[in-house]
Amino acid sequence: MHGEIITIGNELTSGRTPDLNAHYVAGKLTASGLNVIRITSVGDDESMAAEALKRALASSRFVIITGGLGSTEDDMTSKIVATALDRPLCLDHGMLRKIRNYVAAHGIEMTPPLEKMAFMPEGATMIHPKGAVCGFSLIERDIRFYCLPGVPEEMRHVLDAFVLPELLSLYESPPVMRQRLLKLYGVDESQIAEILSELMRTSGEVAFGFYPHFPENHITISLRGDDAPSVTAALDKVEQDIMALVGPYVFATGDQEMEEVVGRLLRHHKKTLSVAESCTGGLIGHRLTDVAGSSDYFQGGVVSYSNQSKTDILHVNWKTLERHGAVSSQTAEEMARGIRKQMKSDLGLAVTGIAGPEGGTREKPVGTVYIGLDAFDGTVSRRYRFRGRRKQVKLNTSMMALDWVRRRLNGDPLLPGI
Amino acid sequence: MHGEIITIGNELTSGRTPDLNAHYVAGKLTASGLNVIRITSVGDDESMAAEALKRALASSRFVIITGGLGSTEDDMTSKIVATALDRPLCLDHGMLRKIRNYVAAHGIEMTPPLEKMAFMPEGATMIHPKGAVCGFSLIERDIRFYCLPGVPEEMRHVLDAFVLPELLSLYESPPVMRQRLLKLYGVDESQIAEILSELMRTSGEVAFGFYPHFPENHITISLRGDDAPSVTAALDKVEQDIMALVGPYVFATGDQEMEEVVGRLLRHHKKTLSVAESCTGGLIGHRLTDVAGSSDYFQGGVVSYSNQSKTDILHVNWKTLERHGAVSSQTAEEMARGIRKQMKSDLGLAVTGIAGPEGGTREKPVGTVYIGLDAFDGTVSRRYRFRGRRKQVKLNTSMMALDWVRRRLNGDPLLPGI
Repeated sequence: MHGEIITIGNELTSGRTPDLNAHYVAGKLTASGLNVIRITSVGDDESMAAEALKRALASSRFVIITGGLGSTEDDMTSKIVATALDRPLCLDHGMLRKIRNYVAAHGIEMTPPLEKMAFMPEGATMIHPKGAVCGFSLIERDIRFYCLPGVPEEMRHVLDAFVLPELLSLYESPPVMRQRLLKLYGVDESQIAEILSELMRTSGEVAFGFYPHFPENHITISLRGDDAPSVTAALDKVEQDIMALVGPYVFATGDQEMEEVVGRLLRHHKKTLSVAESCTGGLIGHRLTDVAGSSDYFQGGVVSYSNQSKTDILHVNWKTLERHGAVSSQTAEEMARGIRKQMKSDLGLAVTGIAGPEGGTREKPVGTVYIGLDAFDGTVSRRYRFRGRRKQVKLNTSMMALDWVRRRLNGDPLLPGI
Repeated sequence: MHGEIITIGNELTSGRTPDLNAHYVAGKLTASGLNVIRITSVGDDESMAAEALKRALASSRFVIITGGLGSTEDDMTSKIVATALDRPLCLDHGMLRKIRNYVAAHGIEMTPPLEKMAFMPEGATMIHPKGAVCGFSLIERDIRFYCLPGVPEEMRHVLDAFVLPELLSLYESPPVMRQRLLKLYGVDESQIAEILSELMRTSGEVAFGFYPHFPENHITISLRGDDAPSVTAALDKVEQDIMALVGPYVFATGDQEMEEVVGRLLRHHKKTLSVAESCTGGLIGHRLTDVAGSSDYFQGGVVSYSNQSKTDILHVNWKTLERHGAVSSQTAEEMARGIRKQMKSDLGLAVTGIAGPEGGTREKPVGTVYIGLDAFDGTVSRRYRFRGRRKQVKLNTSMMALDWVRRRLNGDPLLPGI
C-alpha cells in the first residue's frame, strides 16, 4: 500500500525551515511497512496545493497533508482540500465546541479567525484532537486523506495515535517490513559498494541502501515479506555476510552514535577515559558528554589550544614542542600520557592537528592530525590527513579518535592512516 | 521567475534523512529574489522521477535536481533525466578526464561504477566540478535543468558558484528583493511578537518573519521593490525601530553565529578567553574553535567533569565543593578564577550544572546551571534554570555563557536569570 505526503507552507518553499514534518511522517510510515512514493511541498498557494492533491488522487492510496490548519490568514488547507475535492466547506459543531473549550480554558477571547478553524470539507471527520488546532480525515474515491496540524508535537501525536493505527488496520494481513541500519566509519562509499557488489547480486529480494553521512557511511538492508520469522532470518543472513566483508568498519548496528558505542564499551569494560584536545577544541568531550550517565566513565579533559597550556597542564616537554612542533607524533603521545596522569583515568586520548584554513605548511598541510592513545601498556600515535574545511577536519578527527577507543576496547588493531 | 526543486533518493521518501538540500536550495533561491513554487522528493524510482521532471517542464522556468549522481547502482539521475527528456545518454570525455584525475590523485582504482558517472544526457554541459561527483545543466524548451550532486558541501558549492549567478544573469531588469536577519537570544518568541506588534502594523510593505531556532529566535524583515536604494532605506528604518525595542537581545544582524560575534569582539578588544566547562563537556570550546583564527584569542579550557579535576587543575577548594556542592555559585566562581589563572587569559568563563536526565534534586532540579565570569575587576556568577532535555540544556548553557562574554565586551549589563 503506497501513499504520499503533501506539506503546505511558504516557510518550506522559501527555505526558511527544513521540512522536518515530512521527514518524521515518511520515517514512521516506512517503519510501519507503508510505502511513501512522493513528498511534495508547496507554498500557501491554493492552485499549487490543489494540483498536488489532484495528482495524489491519481497515484496514491493515502495522502498525509500537514500544515495550514491554524487560525492565521495563510492557513487555508481546509479550503484548499474542499475546493480540490469539489466539496463545500461546512461548520463542524464538534470542532467548534472543542475550540470554544480550549479558548475558555486558556482565557483567550473567541475571534473569527479561531472560529474559521471549525470549518471542514463536507464529509470530513475530526481527528482526535490535542490542543486547539485539530486535524481531519476524509475518504475520496477510496483514497484516505489525513489533514494534520503543522505544529510538530501535535502532528506527531495525531499521526502516531490515530493515523498509523487506522492505516495499518486497512490491511487484511499486514505485510512485514524490516530494515536494519549499519553505520561504518573509515571507508569510502565507493569502496563499500565495490566490496559488497557481489553480495548485492546474490541477496535476492533484500534491498541495499547506501547513504553517505559525513564522515560516516550508512548501509541499510530491508526486506518486505509475509511473515516476520522468514524476513528476520533473511536479514540476519545478509547482515552476517556484510559483517564478514566490512565488519571492522561497522561501529554500530542500529541507530547509536559513535559516542554511545564508546560509552557502552567503557562502561562494559569498567574503564575510564580522559581527553586532551587541541584542534578539536572540546568537540570530543562534548560528544562524550552528550550521552546521559557519561560521568561514570568520562573523567574530563583539557583543551590545550595554546602551547603554554600543553606544557603547564599536560606537562608536554618544551623541548618536544621546539624540536617536533605542537602538531607531531611526539606531542600527541606526551599529551595522551599527560592527560591520563592528570585525570587518573585508564585511557588517555589526545589529538593535535591543523584544522585550517590557515596554519598549514608543505610538510604538514591543513588537515594533518596526530592522534595519541595512552594506556597501562604504553602509548600509540599515528598521523592522519583529513580533507575538507575546518569543521569537517574537526568532526573527522573527533570521529577517528573515538573510533580508536572503540577499537582498543574491542581488541581490534588500529586503523592505518586514511 | 519561478522554478522548482526535485530531490531524488530513497533516503528521503523513507524518512532516513531530512531533505536539507532542498531546504538550502530553496533558501538561496528565495534570498536571490527567485520564486520556488514546489519541492518534490521521490525515491530512486525512474518512473516517479520522470513524472516529476515532466510536470516541472509544464510549470517552471528552471528546475534544480539534487542527488543520484554518485557511483552506486541506486544513483541514476543522469539516466532518469535522459529518459524523461527523451535524449540518449552519452559519455562526456571532459567528465571522464576529471574523474580519472581525481582517482589518480587519491590513489583509488578506476572502476566501472566510477566510469558510469561520466555519462550524461545528450546536450548537457558539465558544471564546474569539485570532487569526483560533478553536476550538469541542460536546456529543454527554454527551461533550465540543473542536476547537482547530493553531497551537501559539493551541492552548495556548485549552486553558489555556478547555478545562482547563471539564473540571475537571465533577468533583463532584476527585481530587487532584500532580506535582513536579526538573531535574538534570551527572549521568548511570543514576547517578541507582542513587543513588535505595533511596529508590524505601521511598517507598510515590509514583511516580518519569526522563526524559533532553539535556543535562538530569528526575525527576518524583507521587502521587494523596483530600486535598491529605496528598498534599503525602508529596511534600515525598520531595523532601527526593532533595535530600539529589542536591541539588547539581538546578538547578530546577519548570518553570524554567537561564537563568531564573540570572537570578533575578543579580537577587537584584544582580550583572551579561557573556559572551564562542567555540564557542557567541551561544547563552549568546540563552538569557539569552530571559528577560523580562534587561537588568537582562545587560550583553551578544562573540561572538569569530575570533582577531582576541579580541585587538581582548577584549584577549586575541597571545602567549597563539600559545603556548596559542585553545582553552585561558589564553585562556578572558583572555576572561573582557576581557569583564568591557569591559562593566563584576560577573561575566565565557567559553567557548572545538571544537564540531566539524572542528578536533579528538589533544590537543584535538572537544568539548574551556574555561570561564572572572572576578569581583572572581579568575579560574577548567576543561577539559571534551563528547560528541555540533556542536549538542549547543554546548548542553552553554552549560548548563555557565550552571551555573557558578548555583553561584557559590549559593556551591557548581564542578563537576569531566565
